Amino acid sequence: MEAPNSAPPSRADLVAARERVRGNVHQTPVLTCRTLDQMAGARLFFKAENFQKVGAFKYRGAFNAVSSLAPEERSRGVVTQSSGNHAQALALAAREYGVKAFIVMPDNAPAVKVAAVRGYGAEITFCRATPEARDEATGLLLASTGGVLIHPFDDARIIAGQSTATQELLEAEPGLDLVVAPVGGGGLCSGTALAARDFGDGAKVWGAEPAGADDAYRSLATGVLQKNQRAETIADGLRTHLCPLTFSILRHELEQIVTVEEDEIVAAMRLVWERMKILIEPSAAVAVAAVLRGEAGRRHAKIGIILSGGNVDLDHLPWK
Amino acid sequence: MEAPNSAPPSRADLVAARERVRGNVHQTPVLTCRTLDQMAGARLFFKAENFQKVGAFKYRGAFNAVSSLAPEERSRGVVTQSSGNHAQALALAAREYGVKAFIVMPDNAPAVKVAAVRGYGAEITFCRATPEARDEATGLLLASTGGVLIHPFDDARIIAGQSTATQELLEAEPGLDLVVAPVGGGGLCSGTALAARDFGDGAKVWGAEPAGADDAYRSLATGVLQKNQRAETIADGLRTHLCPLTFSILRHELEQIVTVEEDEIVAAMRLVWERMKILIEPSAAVAVAAVLRGEAGRRHAKIGIILSGGNVDLDHLPWK
Repeated sequence: MEAPNSAPPSRADLVAARERVRGNVHQTPVLTCRTLDQMAGARLFFKAENFQKVGAFKYRGAFNAVSSLAPEERSRGVVTQSSGNHAQALALAAREYGVKAFIVMPDNAPAVKVAAVRGYGAEITFCRATPEARDEATGLLLASTGGVLIHPFDDARIIAGQSTATQELLEAEPGLDLVVAPVGGGGLCSGTALAARDFGDGAKVWGAEPAGADDAYRSLATGVLQKNQRAETIADGLRTHLCPLTFSILRHELEQIVTVEEDEIVAAMRLVWERMKILIEPSAAVAVAAVLRGEAGRRHAKIGIILSGGNVDLDHLPWK
Repeated sequence: MEAPNSAPPSRADLVAARERVRGNVHQTPVLTCRTLDQMAGARLFFKAENFQKVGAFKYRGAFNAVSSLAPEERSRGVVTQSSGNHAQALALAAREYGVKAFIVMPDNAPAVKVAAVRGYGAEITFCRATPEARDEATGLLLASTGGVLIHPFDDARIIAGQSTATQELLEAEPGLDLVVAPVGGGGLCSGTALAARDFGDGAKVWGAEPAGADDAYRSLATGVLQKNQRAETIADGLRTHLCPLTFSILRHELEQIVTVEEDEIVAAMRLVWERMKILIEPSAAVAVAAVLRGEAGRRHAKIGIILSGGNVDLDHLPWK
């Protein structure tokens, strides 16, 4: 028997997610910039999820997942492993519902992220910074708490939640020809692709991935789920690899994946900071860099870009 | 006889400016941030002029000034001296009307700013970086071109233009108790004060000034126009001093001027970057720092803050 959240979310799931998050997540603005339009050769519409709660789209999925739990499940709490935005997002969403959150974090996680998760009232379990240690700690935590696992992307509730960014974008700016989203574990990109399929009036979706962590590109090219041997990219949110659920969605729904080099990511990030006066994180810049490659603008007139988040360490900027 | 633009703009001038800029300048958004509300002890409404054309409120005044020229004046062109945002703003506004712009810039002006002004089609005259050399070069340029001088702040058309930021803010968020704006030459703060007087329904206005360039504070305290002996502040837009016109407006219309230290400016700038995910320049952070002092929130419930601009050098951030 399949686990209940291991099949792709349906159109009804996406609609339900949109209703759940309405008024509970920020309906982030859609920004434009003439300079970037000229550089890309198309009209660009930036969905500014850097302005989302906890600074990233992750709050949408986390909120939808917690919100869709049965009362009995809520009483047991939620469990996840994450050192990044998902941990904060789940901790905050759980707090909104008075649900306990148990988070496994690696013992080398930045102090500022640990403090943020703790600040939202979550209980942290530290483990060594290896996939095996994380999985073991998560398994023990699930057993001891009886909590509900909320994986960062291998979960239909999360994917349906992430789709709401693109649902809002398509409502705000009808007639997009293309939407481009970054690909890490594939939760955001899967949600983007499903939203475009169900509500996009023919809009295509491209994934954008760092060449230094191109597991999704290789997975779609070979038809076999690939992992990153070494994920070497400044885009720390995209170092993970696809899971079977996101792979199955992306291989059916994406038109293509564009990979970009590290210098293109840094240049795109700086360009958006300087011209649009907003902070975006390297993962968000990956989607911008993909569009600045030129092919998107040659083929499409109106392009949506999901700016996935804005959490950066101001003491370690990549152009220093 | 008084020069035509050396008296404060009237209410009718402010209304006319609002009509002129409508659709021609960005109606910038009004942003909020719960974290900063808590720190300030009030509800804060940030008028995001960092998203304005050329990255600063300066475009409002420049556009209004050029827009209000008679056809005969436009044929002669406009002249100013500026190494900063006003030069770019005037160059762009002039281009919109097909008017020639002649700009005096010091020979040590950053290459990027020179390139930007030139990119808008303005003609640049370089001079040594002293006030005397600038005035002499400007005088010669006015004589040789017959152009119309558009001073960065000692001009009623400029002040009326700057007032439109606060007019928009008061329309978007009625019922503000206080509006805080940074003070350099006083053009923005004068426009803010006049807009609040005429359309603010009792809203007070405070100026915010770096302690290292506190000519306006001392001018209002003594009742005599003061200059900065040394303007030592990271807020490069605020190193200038008031002129008779802005002094006369501010001494009548401001409730007070708050001065802030350099470390407060840097902390406020970083706080806005991290929490609001937007780039603001140090001059804008001066107004935020003034509100974070606490007195504003103890006395007022709803506070508007004019984020004057977002032009920063990403290679030289103040927290490095």
